[in-house]
Amino acid sequence: MGDTACNGSHSKKALLSDPQLFDAQFEDLVTELTERDLTDPVLVDALKRLREVLVYNAPGGKRNRGLSVIGSLRELVPPTQLTQDVVQQALLVGWCIELLQAFFLVADDIMDASVTRRGQPCWYKKDGVGLDAINDSFLLEATIYRLLRSHCRDQPFYIHLLELFTETTFQTELGQALDLMTAPPNQIDLNRFTLERYKAIVKYKTAFYSFYLPVAAAMYMAGIESEEEHNNAKHILLEMGEFFQIQDDYLDCYGDPAVTGKIGTDIQDNKCSWLVVTALGIMSPEQRAVLEACYGRHDDASVEKVKALYNTLQMPALYHKHEDESYERLQKLIACHAQNLPHSVFLNFAKKIYKRNK
Amino acid sequence: MGDTACNGSHSKKALLSDPQLFDAQFEDLVTELTERDLTDPVLVDALKRLREVLVYNAPGGKRNRGLSVIGSLRELVPPTQLTQDVVQQALLVGWCIELLQAFFLVADDIMDASVTRRGQPCWYKKDGVGLDAINDSFLLEATIYRLLRSHCRDQPFYIHLLELFTETTFQTELGQALDLMTAPPNQIDLNRFTLERYKAIVKYKTAFYSFYLPVAAAMYMAGIESEEEHNNAKHILLEMGEFFQIQDDYLDCYGDPAVTGKIGTDIQDNKCSWLVVTALGIMSPEQRAVLEACYGRHDDASVEKVKALYNTLQMPALYHKHEDESYERLQKLIACHAQNLPHSVFLNFAKKIYKRNK
Repeated sequence: MGDTACNGSHSKKALLSDPQLFDAQFEDLVTELTERDLTDPVLVDALKRLREVLVYNAPGGKRNRGLSVIGSLRELVPPTQLTQDVVQQALLVGWCIELLQAFFLVADDIMDASVTRRGQPCWYKKDGVGLDAINDSFLLEATIYRLLRSHCRDQPFYIHLLELFTETTFQTELGQALDLMTAPPNQIDLNRFTLERYKAIVKYKTAFYSFYLPVAAAMYMAGIESEEEHNNAKHILLEMGEFFQIQDDYLDCYGDPAVTGKIGTDIQDNKCSWLVVTALGIMSPEQRAVLEACYGRHDDASVEKVKALYNTLQMPALYHKHEDESYERLQKLIACHAQNLPHSVFLNFAKKIYKRNK
Repeated sequence: MGDTACNGSHSKKALLSDPQLFDAQFEDLVTELTERDLTDPVLVDALKRLREVLVYNAPGGKRNRGLSVIGSLRELVPPTQLTQDVVQQALLVGWCIELLQAFFLVADDIMDASVTRRGQPCWYKKDGVGLDAINDSFLLEATIYRLLRSHCRDQPFYIHLLELFTETTFQTELGQALDLMTAPPNQIDLNRFTLERYKAIVKYKTAFYSFYLPVAAAMYMAGIESEEEHNNAKHILLEMGEFFQIQDDYLDCYGDPAVTGKIGTDIQDNKCSWLVVTALGIMSPEQRAVLEACYGRHDDASVEKVKALYNTLQMPALYHKHEDESYERLQKLIACHAQNLPHSVFLNFAKKIYKRNK
């Protein structure tokens, strides 16, 4: 893969951090996909569109998922094996995860009628885009397989990555299907909000692609193919993914917007959040009547009533208890399931996640 | 793969035609995908949705593309090699093409604001579906890779089929991007309608997946992997695909609805059709002014004026001239490019296509 395509000399690159290398690679990938991959001149306008779609939608996130591939690989193989080519490949696979996420987000924003994403208008909201964004989301997904093909085709892990990406895509789509039928934007039915359904949505819609996928990709790149080892890693990482989402739900309501950078709207948006699901499990019929009347409404008074109810039910204390228990459980899972895998792969993740406030 | 999953005994199956076997396989595939593939009980509702999406959108077409896989394979390998397992695999790969088409059609119908498809309401038009159909289209695509994995994973052609399907998907999406920017449903600009653009849209949006894909899949299944042979086949099949679309455009205006089963609306829908592109190349400035005023309008008077213009310009005669020339060209292409491939692979296709009236 394209060392020559990267800016700067080998010595210069060696001084850059993984996030800097990751960011630096993006423009090369865009150029590859839009100028060097398919070169039929009749495609010029379509490839120009692809460039716009990539540039608007792929960067701009926290890129935790993408960076986890190289981060995990550094724990899995000794530094001497991490040649510059291998590092570039791991960064590229990281971008494939960011592209998968971009594919989902562009489409989810249409389905959820969202307005902004990552501090800018949603792609489909841009002038002249509209529902053409559906095909644009397809293009984002397709670039994953173009990149894997051009950069990893000769590698023994190529077929594993193809299967991993297609399987994870399917799991995420099933999770989105569950989410759409559980919390349709305009139909409020709290009977659908159970802890079991909540966990299923989180596992399938978020945890597989955000937590298992990057580590599993790094494992395959490191030559770790055994189903047992993958199942062990999956077990730990899905647990982490569940905690991460619960924390996200908590911060949506209780986080400091000055720190998180966003104002939560889960209550207004009728989201099947950990807070509402947990609260539903412990509230009185009278409290439930209040929730029924106020959840999923956009007026401030309704939102405040839901928040007051959460406070009455001691949701922050319940959350912190859950956080501590989850942390304990995870340490145990790592101790008994990590087996041959270096614990640092999981602990690095855990460190980033627990006790975060944004 | 599942002989046991098929109804009936071996002897009974041997009496069925390929189309009958093809239709009979569908229910087994649906059951496999929704009851035997992923069995996590929390997915039950999502898999129920997947079943509905499959049953509504995958069958009901002419299934020419799907049947072309087994049809081509029968020309490429001697009957003795065509065990029942191989036949079932070829039918399955055929269904993967039908699923790819279903994925595109569900999404295209949303983007084009279409109302009906194959004599029933478009999926997104059904009560309670709406834009959730975007995720449903993703699910249709994902099932391709589930089926290939469960039925072909151990085959030497597995990796070739994965690459063939992902590449063809990308080409089709680039074609759709070109089409959307050339003929947006509500913006009429005849300057964008050139023969070059027309050919590019047809090649990428239709010909790759409808013509090259089924034959290429059969070639890989028959062990034919050489790039040269694939390029030769591609050359011939894309030419056929172009002719097929031109014919489709012609029949949209000049076909007998009693025979074609549909009433054409290309003029009303501002389609970049072979008729309008060809007419634009030979008309006077006065005629162009009429076209500008009438193309893409829904009132009968405008449509009739466009049709009258086509007649004045002798479009039927031009079309028949094109048909004859194209047929000649194709015979020559087959003669010089088919090489080791049996000509019957291409001639069978050609026979079905030329001089059809529906």
